[in-house]
Amino acid sequence: MSMILYGYFRSSAAYRMRIALNLKRLDYEQRSIHLRNGEQRADDFLTLQPQGLVPVLQDGDAALIQSPAMLEYLDEAYPDSAPLLPSAPVDRARVRAISDIVCCDIHPLGNLRVLQFLQGPLGIDQAAMIDWFNHWIRLGFDAIETLLADDPRTGRFCHGDHPGMADVCLVPQVFNSRRHDLDLTPYPTISRIWQACEAEAAFAEAHPSRQPDAE
Amino acid sequence: MSMILYGYFRSSAAYRMRIALNLKRLDYEQRSIHLRNGEQRADDFLTLQPQGLVPVLQDGDAALIQSPAMLEYLDEAYPDSAPLLPSAPVDRARVRAISDIVCCDIHPLGNLRVLQFLQGPLGIDQAAMIDWFNHWIRLGFDAIETLLADDPRTGRFCHGDHPGMADVCLVPQVFNSRRHDLDLTPYPTISRIWQACEAEAAFAEAHPSRQPDAE
Repeated sequence: MSMILYGYFRSSAAYRMRIALNLKRLDYEQRSIHLRNGEQRADDFLTLQPQGLVPVLQDGDAALIQSPAMLEYLDEAYPDSAPLLPSAPVDRARVRAISDIVCCDIHPLGNLRVLQFLQGPLGIDQAAMIDWFNHWIRLGFDAIETLLADDPRTGRFCHGDHPGMADVCLVPQVFNSRRHDLDLTPYPTISRIWQACEAEAAFAEAHPSRQPDAE
Repeated sequence: MSMILYGYFRSSAAYRMRIALNLKRLDYEQRSIHLRNGEQRADDFLTLQPQGLVPVLQDGDAALIQSPAMLEYLDEAYPDSAPLLPSAPVDRARVRAISDIVCCDIHPLGNLRVLQFLQGPLGIDQAAMIDWFNHWIRLGFDAIETLLADDPRTGRFCHGDHPGMADVCLVPQVFNSRRHDLDLTPYPTISRIWQACEAEAAFAEAHPSRQPDAE
């Protein structure tokens, strides 16, 4: 039985999962949860994911939540296909740290529910919201650029010459950064790796514009 | 040679690391980076951590950053002491998901640099800042309470009867939630587990009030 990915074409976290499932050549069906229409707040979905957030990955009886936990799960439950992490603990820590900068320090500050809270209850205008959005991406990308540019372990991809967890997290964040036209000129290494990823089928096929629910 | 933990008594992420190092009975020295005095922006520290964030864990030649990546590292590099994760992939995914709700969906929205940006550039007043702070904790705790209360795998701690990664992440977040007096009455399972953790030496000794740089 193939896995089921509950997602939304534009969600960065769902995009991560599509890339990872493609890299590992695992079969999955997609179910779209339309975030702007509030489908994530339907009772059925809340039973799967009490936060009302996508993605959810159903693998047999298990409904898995939180994309960083799911990426680890895929590597542990399906160790025979392309590993998302290298083997040495120090290298694994490096790849996870780059992933965490995206998943903990950039993405949570720019996701839909946060922008809605800024513009609703806090009454922030559109221009200030865009400053906020780009500010956190810029801080995170500054650090990731330094970590990538200064380390001989960086190859064609974030860690060596095979794409892995850090690339899976970085590419959707670069896509997201273009929403409000962040200037990528200060990030030559990130840009180079992003282009290398876009040339891979696993990434290209996971692109938001190519999903069945794309608008 | 013992490890060096660069931290700050009140940082949730440093508090996580102190608990985990204590649980695993690993020796470490603490170096305090005073966040309110801006020591995280000193050149020496930025060489270790380009984001200027604590904690950093120095283990031999390796300077590790990002607490979720460091927790995984401790379990992988020191597998003989108390494991922070259970063994089955589905259970590991559960523990990591609870941890991720704290590390990705709660903590990033309430940390110092974010509150400073809200109150500085965005001009949010103190009352709105406290609403923001508590709003994201409440959303995350609502989900964690459901995940803990509804699952037979919850024991004396978040997963079974030994403390692990989810407890390591949850306890500093509960501590943090008391800063602006969040009502914990809706979270009986979280409260019970928090109290069980506080009774353990590994947690009690890691408490912010017991650190050398506590004010």
